[in-house]
Amino acid sequence: MKTLLALAALSLAIPAHAGEANKGEHWLVVTDMWGTPAYSTMTLIREEGGLSGELDGDPVRGDAKGKSLRFVATDAKGTEYRYAGMRDGAAMSGEADFADSNTPGARARHRFTARRLPERPEGLPRTYDFTPTDYSNLFSADRAPVLTIWPGDTVRTSTVDSGGVDAAGVTRALFGNPQTGPFYVDGAVAGDTLAIHIKRLTPNRDYADSLDSIVGRALGTSLVAKAGDLGKPVRWKLDRATGRATPEGTGALKDLSVPMRPMLGGLAVAPGFGSAPMSTGDTGRTGGNMDFNEVVAGNTVFLPVQQPGALLYLGDAHALQGDGETSQYALETSMDVEFGVELIKGRSIGSPRVESPTQIMVLGQAGSLDEATKAASTGLIQWLQQDYGLTLSESAQLMGSAVRLTIANLAGRSVGVSARIDKALLPAKRVL
Amino acid sequence: MKTLLALAALSLAIPAHAGEANKGEHWLVVTDMWGTPAYSTMTLIREEGGLSGELDGDPVRGDAKGKSLRFVATDAKGTEYRYAGMRDGAAMSGEADFADSNTPGARARHRFTARRLPERPEGLPRTYDFTPTDYSNLFSADRAPVLTIWPGDTVRTSTVDSGGVDAAGVTRALFGNPQTGPFYVDGAVAGDTLAIHIKRLTPNRDYADSLDSIVGRALGTSLVAKAGDLGKPVRWKLDRATGRATPEGTGALKDLSVPMRPMLGGLAVAPGFGSAPMSTGDTGRTGGNMDFNEVVAGNTVFLPVQQPGALLYLGDAHALQGDGETSQYALETSMDVEFGVELIKGRSIGSPRVESPTQIMVLGQAGSLDEATKAASTGLIQWLQQDYGLTLSESAQLMGSAVRLTIANLAGRSVGVSARIDKALLPAKRVL
Amino acid sequence: MKTLLALAALSLAIPAHAGEANKGEHWLVVTDMWGTPAYSTMTLIREEGGLSGELDGDPVRGDAKGKSLRFVATDAKGTEYRYAGMRDGAAMSGEADFADSNTPGARARHRFTARRLPERPEGLPRTYDFTPTDYSNLFSADRAPVLTIWPGDTVRTSTVDSGGVDAAGVTRALFGNPQTGPFYVDGAVAGDTLAIHIKRLTPNRDYADSLDSIVGRALGTSLVAKAGDLGKPVRWKLDRATGRATPEGTGALKDLSVPMRPMLGGLAVAPGFGSAPMSTGDTGRTGGNMDFNEVVAGNTVFLPVQQPGALLYLGDAHALQGDGETSQYALETSMDVEFGVELIKGRSIGSPRVESPTQIMVLGQAGSLDEATKAASTGLIQWLQQDYGLTLSESAQLMGSAVRLTIANLAGRSVGVSARIDKALLPAKRVL
Amino acid sequence: MKTLLALAALSLAIPAHAGEANKGEHWLVVTDMWGTPAYSTMTLIREEGGLSGELDGDPVRGDAKGKSLRFVATDAKGTEYRYAGMRDGAAMSGEADFADSNTPGARARHRFTARRLPERPEGLPRTYDFTPTDYSNLFSADRAPVLTIWPGDTVRTSTVDSGGVDAAGVTRALFGNPQTGPFYVDGAVAGDTLAIHIKRLTPNRDYADSLDSIVGRALGTSLVAKAGDLGKPVRWKLDRATGRATPEGTGALKDLSVPMRPMLGGLAVAPGFGSAPMSTGDTGRTGGNMDFNEVVAGNTVFLPVQQPGALLYLGDAHALQGDGETSQYALETSMDVEFGVELIKGRSIGSPRVESPTQIMVLGQAGSLDEATKAASTGLIQWLQQDYGLTLSESAQLMGSAVRLTIANLAGRSVGVSARIDKALLPAKRVL
Repeated sequence: MKTLLALAALSLAIPAHAGEANKGEHWLVVTDMWGTPAYSTMTLIREEGGLSGELDGDPVRGDAKGKSLRFVATDAKGTEYRYAGMRDGAAMSGEADFADSNTPGARARHRFTARRLPERPEGLPRTYDFTPTDYSNLFSADRAPVLTIWPGDTVRTSTVDSGGVDAAGVTRALFGNPQTGPFYVDGAVAGDTLAIHIKRLTPNRDYADSLDSIVGRALGTSLVAKAGDLGKPVRWKLDRATGRATPEGTGALKDLSVPMRPMLGGLAVAPGFGSAPMSTGDTGRTGGNMDFNEVVAGNTVFLPVQQPGALLYLGDAHALQGDGETSQYALETSMDVEFGVELIKGRSIGSPRVESPTQIMVLGQAGSLDEATKAASTGLIQWLQQDYGLTLSESAQLMGSAVRLTIANLAGRSVGVSARIDKALLPAKRVL
Repeated sequence: MKTLLALAALSLAIPAHAGEANKGEHWLVVTDMWGTPAYSTMTLIREEGGLSGELDGDPVRGDAKGKSLRFVATDAKGTEYRYAGMRDGAAMSGEADFADSNTPGARARHRFTARRLPERPEGLPRTYDFTPTDYSNLFSADRAPVLTIWPGDTVRTSTVDSGGVDAAGVTRALFGNPQTGPFYVDGAVAGDTLAIHIKRLTPNRDYADSLDSIVGRALGTSLVAKAGDLGKPVRWKLDRATGRATPEGTGALKDLSVPMRPMLGGLAVAPGFGSAPMSTGDTGRTGGNMDFNEVVAGNTVFLPVQQPGALLYLGDAHALQGDGETSQYALETSMDVEFGVELIKGRSIGSPRVESPTQIMVLGQAGSLDEATKAASTGLIQWLQQDYGLTLSESAQLMGSAVRLTIANLAGRSVGVSARIDKALLPAKRVL
Repeated sequence: MKTLLALAALSLAIPAHAGEANKGEHWLVVTDMWGTPAYSTMTLIREEGGLSGELDGDPVRGDAKGKSLRFVATDAKGTEYRYAGMRDGAAMSGEADFADSNTPGARARHRFTARRLPERPEGLPRTYDFTPTDYSNLFSADRAPVLTIWPGDTVRTSTVDSGGVDAAGVTRALFGNPQTGPFYVDGAVAGDTLAIHIKRLTPNRDYADSLDSIVGRALGTSLVAKAGDLGKPVRWKLDRATGRATPEGTGALKDLSVPMRPMLGGLAVAPGFGSAPMSTGDTGRTGGNMDFNEVVAGNTVFLPVQQPGALLYLGDAHALQGDGETSQYALETSMDVEFGVELIKGRSIGSPRVESPTQIMVLGQAGSLDEATKAASTGLIQWLQQDYGLTLSESAQLMGSAVRLTIANLAGRSVGVSARIDKALLPAKRVL
Repeated sequence: MKTLLALAALSLAIPAHAGEANKGEHWLVVTDMWGTPAYSTMTLIREEGGLSGELDGDPVRGDAKGKSLRFVATDAKGTEYRYAGMRDGAAMSGEADFADSNTPGARARHRFTARRLPERPEGLPRTYDFTPTDYSNLFSADRAPVLTIWPGDTVRTSTVDSGGVDAAGVTRALFGNPQTGPFYVDGAVAGDTLAIHIKRLTPNRDYADSLDSIVGRALGTSLVAKAGDLGKPVRWKLDRATGRATPEGTGALKDLSVPMRPMLGGLAVAPGFGSAPMSTGDTGRTGGNMDFNEVVAGNTVFLPVQQPGALLYLGDAHALQGDGETSQYALETSMDVEFGVELIKGRSIGSPRVESPTQIMVLGQAGSLDEATKAASTGLIQWLQQDYGLTLSESAQLMGSAVRLTIANLAGRSVGVSARIDKALLPAKRVL
């Protein structure tokens, strides 16, 4: 919100718990911008003579009297963002008074609310078991978090399949890649990068549902006329003991058995202020329904945080998927998921990244493969420069001799292309 | 030519060598179609009372008297193609009289020449050592063959680098991927498929020349402004003992050493009648400057024959190339090449194919990655159906779970995408 | 919702107003599908012995007792959708019990609410003056209608500019093409087509704001490096007396004066069930931020209805725009708007259509111009076949000699291409 | 050739005609570069003590003795290009000795020939009547000119249709857009721009042949399966008195009558050294089978010269064509053509340009519409900057408000997009 508005403050009556006053309280502030909520993080510290702190990084001054409080945040250009409201325990509400960015001299009033964020639990990183009870059909900044976690923490949870069906075969959510989440990662703010370590992905039932489709983007004109009968459901048997998948049916594929490689088709953080909620069938810079078959256990996915808490969603697990998800539905199944999170503060990335034990990979996404390829290549060069210290010339030489370019996803509105390099060819990672 | 025109014949005085008369003589007929040569194969058999045989598969009847001969070929629709000329040993010339395909009832006269094709040498398949003395800067049907070979034969030869420079560092040809060849594969006609077994590819000098470029198709807008200094020559040292390549220079890549994987960037048969000669920098259904890093020793490339003798060209070898040849020049070097050829009669393929010990791959090529992907996928399905008996539905299921899609080439006018499947997942190949 | 779920009913206590019982009451039913609202229209008729009617076209049977009511809708396959709830005047709420489409035999319960729709006012078509008080930054099915209108009606209203600024220069909404609406067009349901007659578009202030940008899709590589300084604001003076626009500034354009052609950049109906709300910067089959410079006064736009009431939004007016909106911002200004609506029942169209006094035009929209062109051409053929009775062969002949293809929009995530034909070349429109 | 090689000379025995010695003789030099001819222009002046002059702009010094001569051209870097040979009237031949650009210090020998170019006839610009006797199926630098003309001259000639059929319905050339030409425009060299004024285009027979096809690039997936029956011939009657075209046939189009707008589908200058001959079905920077329906009488086409004499080809005339040539064949017919040429010395353009009485237009061509659009827009900006003095910012403003973007051609390997501006909006053209 800082880049958009910026905020401010005066006087807040905070109970003076010993030792706590110094580091202050953490709040999530929600300002209603003509109907669109803007999320900010705020720290308020009770001091002699008033309040101090910061709001989205801008300094805050204010004062409190009883339940009422006022504060002003001042951005780098000196613009003031004035808030006045009432506090009731861990909640706050009132009105903000901002400069009208379109009309010099004019001001605009906006309702705001705030909720106090929990403090980090004591002790080592924790592992949470989270059983979802409902699912989201949007990647949205506006859905209430299901759990707050901290960098270093691990979560064990589960996902329903893309049709909303769970391990027991019961529909628990609306079709269209319903997602588990969002998880609020405390401390994450726009401009950071969230690292999601995929620790374990285990199908939790013994079948997956797919189709015998070929997506339009993989279908030459000579095949279109013959493809009219395609699109029929195909059930695959998942043998969790041997780790192999087999389509039900006879014919030339009667002996087919493909090694499973469980993956998450959907993984996203919430889109930023000014962006619409994203369909769980769509993708973007923040991830989404990437359907990239390298989002597997053992790999780490990096996504650019756009909102306080990052708001991580996951779903649409596949037991197995060829490149491009050419069959429109991969081997869709419900999944037990274990993941950990880390935060890279102040590091922004242009595209989703994946790191495996042996490779670094960037996923470029766009409306055509030609544009997605440029995005993938450009993102990989950004990574080589940021983390490995290569010049542009050196990046060009390394890519010319060693880049791997694969098509990740053909089934969505945007397509995906990955650019990757073997880590064995890279110089030592720089200390950042 | 049959599909285009079709031809015809009467009486040819062939010396009656015992045992040879039955199988006849083989000729390559060149008809001048208003300035464009059309190539046909003809068999002429001396019989009691005249000549018989076939011309591009159409039956021929004729007669000969001294050096003069006349013959008529009649196509499936009953259209007659009349030839009259003189024979002088292994050469023939005269005039052909064709129906005017645009003007009902009218006829058009065309000059023709013919040369007698050599007979297959006795004995087992042979291995030829061929040292090129000049090189071609076009993939053309009109260049005289440098060598006639037969299915099963092997050729040991060499290529100069893309700049025309040989093993000794001497320029032997014009820049722009000059090619060795063409090799005339006896028996090949349009509608067949030529299998080229790449048996050995060995760089024959200790350096390769490359650039530090990034092709426009791999360059996002944010990089373009910074890419102005790119395009500088980079020489790579090729250590043929260890099989590794190292760029000259310092900086972050000073310890880089990449395993070589020698490949042919250029491999093509001649384009068909009605198509222009193809630039050695261009690609098409007949192959060309594919720059596909799976055209390596141990693999077999399949190309669709368009002209009598196929007319195989090869060149533009790379010691190593990343996917897409993103540096515009890969590690360009001169190469010793050993290849064998086989012919699959009457089998036409839509796109270049490559078979490795473990995978089948199809290369789709088009003006955009989106179209090239469709071509690759469609070509792979054609292969699955032709050779492995899969239905379209089964192809869809197999691809959805197991296809690999990689970007082969970004550096040319057309781009290339490969679609591939592990052979371990395929049913047994059908007897054709 | 019919295609998705289908519904059902028993007993509803409707007061027996004379004459009204026969045609029944009209309701908008909102069923909560695991968090996503599904909108249906329902007619309930009080009859001897119970209730009848239809829900999204499926027959309904039920009964009512006091405020409680139950009803069942049965779809064409015989699946039953059971509702039970309470009625309170013009509101209803309760629980629905549906078959689980994913799990044979299982059922799923969903909360529902309903509101009674107003009856059509007596008399001739009406003209409404509507002054907006807030604006929407989403094309959403979930925003409450600002006004209910009927086919034949006319609305006089206004739009703020793309930055949310009104005629007086005051910011009234969040930047990003905030929209006036939605207008609920009574009687519209999914499968119908909404015709929007643009009757008048008048800029209501004397300036427009633009940029000196060139969008990436119009920028060749050779220009990118020089384009770093672009993107600066340019204010244009709108002379409403002469109807001409002039950029402020000097230099080579100091005498430039371009005739205004006021247009609506944004025009959309709400997306259907299962689709995410659409950003007001995005486009789709339902219209959106089309930025098509033929959405001008005198023309009629046709959009495919996806939700009960269509839910029409409009905004982002431009005083003038070149093809493609290559400057990213056109001449953005606030506008007085007058439009009428008509409904074409049971006629579905694949793409937005525009009809001018002299031409019919279809707008194809996709992630690349290549795909958008296919959509435009295909949509135009659909129109020629639906309304003018042309065969596919005849459509091909007409297009080959007379189609006009222009690029409408390059500035969004999807691009737009229009295909158009002069009406003078068309046969008489068929009676439908 | 200068940029590629550069040349040189010593001593040439030129008969000392009075007055002629000063301006020298003009030659076209053809150097065999390992099988590829390189064309250069040379001026040789007999002076006291030897020869002087220039070869592709580089100074030449030499001497002649009887029929033998030697000369050396020295390029800006001081590299010498040595020629030695024999002259026989208006012909010359011998051997050239060049530096090996790939191998420092080494030299390479090449055969050369030369022919003396005719002197400009006295008097005013001339009008030539040229009746073609054969046609070219390649845009090639290697085909002998059919006529030499000078800037300012006019030519009256004719073209056969795309199938090679003439005004009388007789096939005169091979199908595939056979071309009339090439015309050698004296004085034109690489780096100049050739302006072709289309003065008159008149169909010279009363019918045109077309198809009822829809090209793949205009065909959405939903139509492909239905398009199997398309591709049938459609003959159109051309009423030259009324200027209207009518398809033969009945049905919904039985009353269709479309105004003719005769155009040249093919117009090109020869490609440069190092480029392959271009198919007459292909396009490029030098023009080609552009199929742009603004190449009509009254308009001027500008093409970038790549070879001495420009070598202008023209053919594939259409009585009428919709945008994109969506029917694959437009209304193909034979045509009487009158055109004039002018030369803009030392002005290079990136793309074909067309100027009408009211608009300036640039044609962008590429493998996808997305890339072609960038080329068109970029080319138009180049024009605005070169000829009208606009800055990039001003170009952006003008285009954003007034550019027209149309799709010119969808039927070839490359597609074409035009960007155009009304001349009424432009400032005065600068004196160059």
